[in-house]
Amino acid sequence: LSDRVTLAIDVMGGDLGLHAILPASIAALAKKPSLFLFLCGNKSAILSYFEHEKISASHFNRVEIIDAPSVVEMDDKPSFALRHRRDSSMFLALSLVRDKKALACVSAGNTGALMAMSCLLIKTIKGISRPAIVASLPTLKGQCTVLDLGANINCKAHHLYQFAVMGSALASGVFGIVKPKVGLLNIGSEINKGIESVIEAGDMLNSHAVVNYRGFIEADDVYVGKMDVIVCDGFAGNILLKTSEGLAKFINFKVAKNLKTNIFRRMLTWLAAPVLLDIREQLNPSRRNGAVLLGLRSVVVKSHGGANRQGFESAIDQAIIALSCDLVQLIEQGISKKI
Amino acid sequence: LSDRVTLAIDVMGGDLGLHAILPASIAALAKKPSLFLFLCGNKSAILSYFEHEKISASHFNRVEIIDAPSVVEMDDKPSFALRHRRDSSMFLALSLVRDKKALACVSAGNTGALMAMSCLLIKTIKGISRPAIVASLPTLKGQCTVLDLGANINCKAHHLYQFAVMGSALASGVFGIVKPKVGLLNIGSEINKGIESVIEAGDMLNSHAVVNYRGFIEADDVYVGKMDVIVCDGFAGNILLKTSEGLAKFINFKVAKNLKTNIFRRMLTWLAAPVLLDIREQLNPSRRNGAVLLGLRSVVVKSHGGANRQGFESAIDQAIIALSCDLVQLIEQGISKKI
Repeated sequence: LSDRVTLAIDVMGGDLGLHAILPASIAALAKKPSLFLFLCGNKSAILSYFEHEKISASHFNRVEIIDAPSVVEMDDKPSFALRHRRDSSMFLALSLVRDKKALACVSAGNTGALMAMSCLLIKTIKGISRPAIVASLPTLKGQCTVLDLGANINCKAHHLYQFAVMGSALASGVFGIVKPKVGLLNIGSEINKGIESVIEAGDMLNSHAVVNYRGFIEADDVYVGKMDVIVCDGFAGNILLKTSEGLAKFINFKVAKNLKTNIFRRMLTWLAAPVLLDIREQLNPSRRNGAVLLGLRSVVVKSHGGANRQGFESAIDQAIIALSCDLVQLIEQGISKKI
Repeated sequence: LSDRVTLAIDVMGGDLGLHAILPASIAALAKKPSLFLFLCGNKSAILSYFEHEKISASHFNRVEIIDAPSVVEMDDKPSFALRHRRDSSMFLALSLVRDKKALACVSAGNTGALMAMSCLLIKTIKGISRPAIVASLPTLKGQCTVLDLGANINCKAHHLYQFAVMGSALASGVFGIVKPKVGLLNIGSEINKGIESVIEAGDMLNSHAVVNYRGFIEADDVYVGKMDVIVCDGFAGNILLKTSEGLAKFINFKVAKNLKTNIFRRMLTWLAAPVLLDIREQLNPSRRNGAVLLGLRSVVVKSHGGANRQGFESAIDQAIIALSCDLVQLIEQGISKKI
C-alpha cells in the first residue's frame, strides 16, 4: 500500500460535470492499479452513473465517494464561494488534501474559487504570494512552460518575479532543461515598452540572477521556441492560451473544408488524413489539458472547464506526474534560493 | 487631377525600412494610376535605390521625396520622439497630412511614437480620447474587427466604450454589416469575471444602447465568428494578434515538416500544395497587414513593423480603402450618436 497514489477528484466541476469526469476517473483507475480516488460530489448521481455503466468491482474497490451537498457554480465569485460553498465538491476535495487523506486534488471547476479555496486550505509555499496556473505549449524546438494562465489577473512586478522562479524550477526539475531560458511576455522586445509591472519585473530579474532571464518576448515568438519559460499575468496568459486553442480549431476546420471543395481534393482527404491527424493531436487542447496550480504546498490541478473525458483524464495524469517528480519540493528549493 | 489620391509614406520605419517600403510604393503606383506619393526619408538613400532599381519615369513623376534628417527608432519613447524627432520621416509624413498636402499617412515605424505624433498633428475626432489600432481577423463566418491592437496599453472603461462605438461604425460603414455584434474580450463569459475596466465597460455598453453589445467573449471564440467587433485593451489585443500570427506560422511549418517525413507523404506534398496554399493565404499576416489608427481626423495606417514588400503594399491599400469609403466621417457619425 506504500506506493498507493490517492487523489481527490471534484466530480461536479466543469461544463460536462460528472459525465466527463467519472468516465475519465474510471479510465485512470484502469490504467494505474496503484491509484485510489476520492470522488467528491452528488453521491446518488455518482452511484446511479456507476450502476448504469456497470463499473467493475476492481475499480469500485479503489474509490470512495464523498457526498457533497453543494456545487461551486462557474459564475460564483471566489469570495462568495469561500463563504457559502464549504460543503461543495471542490471544498471537500481540497479538504481531503489538507487533511493528508489525499496527495493531490483535480478539479475542472471555477478557477477563481479553486484558487481561493486552495490558498485557504492548502496554503502557498513560503515566499510565494499567490499560486499560478501553468501549462506547456508545443514549440518548433519542443515545448515551453507558460504561467500564469488565468489565476491572477492583476499582477504586480513581484508576482511576475515569483512566477519566473517557479516556472524555472518546473522546467529544470520536471522537464530536465538545464538553465531554462525565461522570458517576460510583452508587446515589444525593447526594454522600455509595455505595461509598468512587466518592465519592473524585467528590472528585478535582471538585477537578481536567480533565473536565466533573457528579456521580453512577443507573442508571435512563443511558438518559435525562443524561451523555455514564458511569464505573464493571468489575463494575458489566458488570451494567449485560448487564442491558440481557437485558432487551432479554426485551421482544422478550414483544412477539412478546403479538402472537400472539389472531387480532386476529396480524394486528397483520404491521403492527407494521417498528416492532419498528427497536427491535430499536437495542438489538441484536450491532450495537453491539466494545468498545475503552481506555488501551493500540495499538488492541485485545474482542468479546463470545457474538458471532455480525454481532457480530464489528462488532468489526472498531470497530477500523478507532479507527485512522482515531487514538484512541490522542487519549487520550494527554487524559491528558497531567491533572496 | 481631382481624383488624385495623395499619400504620405514614412519610408524609414519598420524592420526592413526602405528595402520593403520603396518596392511596395512602386508596386502601389503601378497598380493605381491616380496615386501620388510623398516619400519621406533619407533623400540620397531613396534616390540611390531608384537609380539602382531603374524606376520608370511614369512612376517617378508621381512621387515627391521629402528629405528627413532623422528617424524615429523602434525603442524611442513616444515622449522622446515628440521632443527630439520633429525632423524625422514619421513626423514629416504626418505634417503633410496636417497641412492637407496628403490625404493619409502610412508608417511601419514605432507604434507609440506614431500614436503620439498623430494625436499632436492630426488630432482625434471630438468625443474620442485616444485613437485605437484596428484590424480584421478571419472567422468561420467571415471576418471580425478587433481593436485595440497595441496603441493603448492601459485602458479605462470609457476608452473601451469608445472603441466599441468606433469598431461598430467601421463594421457597419466599411464592411456593410447590419447592426454588428460587439463583444468585450475577457477571460470568462460571466458578467462578474475579469479585469475591472472590462466589467465596467460592459455595464456602460449595457446601459447605453448605442451599439449592439452582446457581452463578453473569450479568446477561443474569436475565430468562431460569434462577434463582428471585438473590443479589448492594446496589450490583450496585441497578444491575441501576435499569438495568432505565431501559431499560424508554427502550423504551416508543422504541415510542411509532416509532409516530408516519408516518401508516401512527400508524394502528398505535390498533391496537397493548393490546399495548403489556400490556408496559408487566409492566415498570412502580410496579406492582411495594415491597421488603421481609428479615431483620428484623417487616415493614418500603421503597418506591422516586420512587414515585407507585400505587407507594406497591403498597408497602402488599406489607406486607399479607408479614404474611398470616407471612414473618418463614418466614425464621426457613430460617435456623435453617443451622447
